[in-house]
Amino acid sequence: MVGDGALRALPLDGAGGRRGTNLPAMGDFNQSVILEAVRRAPQGLSRVELAEATGLSAQTVSNISRRLLDADLISEAGKEVSGPGKPRTILRLNPGGRFALGAHLDPTVTTVVLLDLAGSVIARERIGTPLQQRPDEVIDAIAATAERLLIDSGIDRSRLAGLGVAAPGPIDPVAGALVGPPNLQGWHRVAVRDELRLRSGMEVVVDKDVTAAAVAEKWAAASGAGSGSFVFLYVGTGIGAGIVVDGEVVRGSADNAGEVGHIVVDPGGPECTCGSRGCVAVTCTPEALVREWWGLGGRSADRGATDTEAIDGAFTLLAAEAGSGDPLAVLVLERAAMRFARLLAVMTNLLDVDRVVLGGPFLTPISALMMSTVPVELEGLRAARGIHPLGVGTSALGDDVAAIGAAALILDRTLSPQTRSLMLPAILA
Amino acid sequence: MVGDGALRALPLDGAGGRRGTNLPAMGDFNQSVILEAVRRAPQGLSRVELAEATGLSAQTVSNISRRLLDADLISEAGKEVSGPGKPRTILRLNPGGRFALGAHLDPTVTTVVLLDLAGSVIARERIGTPLQQRPDEVIDAIAATAERLLIDSGIDRSRLAGLGVAAPGPIDPVAGALVGPPNLQGWHRVAVRDELRLRSGMEVVVDKDVTAAAVAEKWAAASGAGSGSFVFLYVGTGIGAGIVVDGEVVRGSADNAGEVGHIVVDPGGPECTCGSRGCVAVTCTPEALVREWWGLGGRSADRGATDTEAIDGAFTLLAAEAGSGDPLAVLVLERAAMRFARLLAVMTNLLDVDRVVLGGPFLTPISALMMSTVPVELEGLRAARGIHPLGVGTSALGDDVAAIGAAALILDRTLSPQTRSLMLPAILA
Repeated sequence: MVGDGALRALPLDGAGGRRGTNLPAMGDFNQSVILEAVRRAPQGLSRVELAEATGLSAQTVSNISRRLLDADLISEAGKEVSGPGKPRTILRLNPGGRFALGAHLDPTVTTVVLLDLAGSVIARERIGTPLQQRPDEVIDAIAATAERLLIDSGIDRSRLAGLGVAAPGPIDPVAGALVGPPNLQGWHRVAVRDELRLRSGMEVVVDKDVTAAAVAEKWAAASGAGSGSFVFLYVGTGIGAGIVVDGEVVRGSADNAGEVGHIVVDPGGPECTCGSRGCVAVTCTPEALVREWWGLGGRSADRGATDTEAIDGAFTLLAAEAGSGDPLAVLVLERAAMRFARLLAVMTNLLDVDRVVLGGPFLTPISALMMSTVPVELEGLRAARGIHPLGVGTSALGDDVAAIGAAALILDRTLSPQTRSLMLPAILA
Repeated sequence: MVGDGALRALPLDGAGGRRGTNLPAMGDFNQSVILEAVRRAPQGLSRVELAEATGLSAQTVSNISRRLLDADLISEAGKEVSGPGKPRTILRLNPGGRFALGAHLDPTVTTVVLLDLAGSVIARERIGTPLQQRPDEVIDAIAATAERLLIDSGIDRSRLAGLGVAAPGPIDPVAGALVGPPNLQGWHRVAVRDELRLRSGMEVVVDKDVTAAAVAEKWAAASGAGSGSFVFLYVGTGIGAGIVVDGEVVRGSADNAGEVGHIVVDPGGPECTCGSRGCVAVTCTPEALVREWWGLGGRSADRGATDTEAIDGAFTLLAAEAGSGDPLAVLVLERAAMRFARLLAVMTNLLDVDRVVLGGPFLTPISALMMSTVPVELEGLRAARGIHPLGVGTSALGDDVAAIGAAALILDRTLSPQTRSLMLPAILA
């Protein structure tokens, strides 16, 4: 139920059979639907409007509104006169009714945020992730930073729903562990979830950074933007995709959906470790683009360096030079845009989504250039062009999208409508 | 409700909001869950076992079983003594309780089948689809064949749930029309659904052939095989994918999911019309493989021909030669297997499914060769290897998989649990 901060148990598919649903599951689901409708209407909604928006009966809306008011998740915000009859009471989200912490574990920087129920960042701190640091030191730092943000904010601990962690994939969802992420050496099979639970005493969930980014977009982006079906192309140290179908995140059988590193986007491109050529991993990552730029004569102080920080710096310079019109930098990023369009075409043709969102820390500095090329190129490659339009946009959440998503993982799991939560859980043998 | 043969209205996402659910929707959903559990247990299940399998209460199982018995969808099949206490009545599917017709519209041959509730083919007929035939002639032939199969079978028309059509994509789901399928000239924007409704008086649905194949696998394959998440790689005149996530088909925003023709699987391969090289469309289709074989010196009577029937014949010969160990034919198909593995790696890494199914009319003759290469190659390319196993198998439904799937579309929409059907429909403005 809403209010206890506990995560709902998700049902397991037993011996292939689907599970039924019952009244308590239905009540929880409808409560989430009402909360989501209120959340997506910053100006608030009356009970009558909520019934229209959700299809639920006036009685159901009235009962659920009462429960949400009692749980402090929504509040009454004045009355509205609308035609004849009694003025209607407006219900609005209570942003301070629940909070969540989120940590984005990244090869260069770990970001911790505190999010309120409206998806606003209340507090934020960045801590370095030096590659020589041991995993337990980084986990200690995350726990300490999360605790400090919570205390400094002065919010009531009972209103904290938990701590979400976004990390590079692949992950082992059963162990709550990272499984040898290519850019985080020494992190093989580190049980981040349990370690953080022990240190913080908080409810902890772990998910892939790209999935977290999609959840951020679904939860924290402008009202309406997070609905429907979309692919979030996340450009970080690595590149991956978050997938949302009909408003729900597609995580896959073991939460590892969204791996796109070996999709070929440039058949004439360099060889890849997978045995193919021109894969995303060797043509689209910040490191690949910086190396391409250097190879064509691009100059930066760190030219030829291989460490993550040097690549970061060089990429920033590449983006800045392209922004000021330097032909070589523009050429490199135009090529990148063509490859991103090809990658997005693979995903949108396979999944036939409504729209795509581009985001992540390395997308921010090149977003204008990407938006001038990607939509046009992608449209030319779409199988469903002429049948329905495809929206292309950039995330409004900036560099912190994965950290915001990490916190949103907690809010999404506890408070968003999940059709899977309608199914009765199977008993574990 | 079950029994009237009508299709459930699927909810529309309104202005971005999710819809709630209510008791009637829940009752329908649970009824589908119980029917599916019975359907997947050929030996039958007692009410107690059904309660365990679905998580539903004994009272709910009892009420729903009564309704399913009244609707002739299940029957009582003797009693079983199990420990102390009253013997338990076994409930089994009544295969003759409902039927559906399916038509697979294909460039070379159109297949019409009559399916019972157990997914068994009761009757089947193939009619030619000469390319010079006009769409209205083909539609006339489908309607006449469907009617003849129905009459010859002697089944009660009231037990027919409808007629499903599987066709090459893309499709326009609103108009129920094909949208210029590359291999069916003259079929641009032909409103197959409405034309067939007019001629047959039956409920008609239209879907992509690859989606129908996935539904066939989900509905008609051996018990348990259709659950979970899987990708169906369909090898027909064209190649596409059907996607099932958590037991439900992913159709996309406009029912056009599953387009894989321009995924690059051989960067050194031939140029494609899309501007890239080595796409599925130019390296994996039967025509591409036959041309590759001819190019390497492979001999067949039709060498150099371009019409669909000649390609069909040459592909059959290629498959037969490979089957008898001809080195050149084996080489061509081994290369094809590597490309299929790369295509499947793109999809399984993106979606993290439990398993993949290979099928379709052109897969059948080469399935042994594919199964000796694809699983090993695919495993080497999987991001989630070591985290969970991936099953790889071939469809047991053979050449008729798309026609069976077309009929299963009808059964699936009316009788399978669909979480979307739990959501209250939005009112169209």
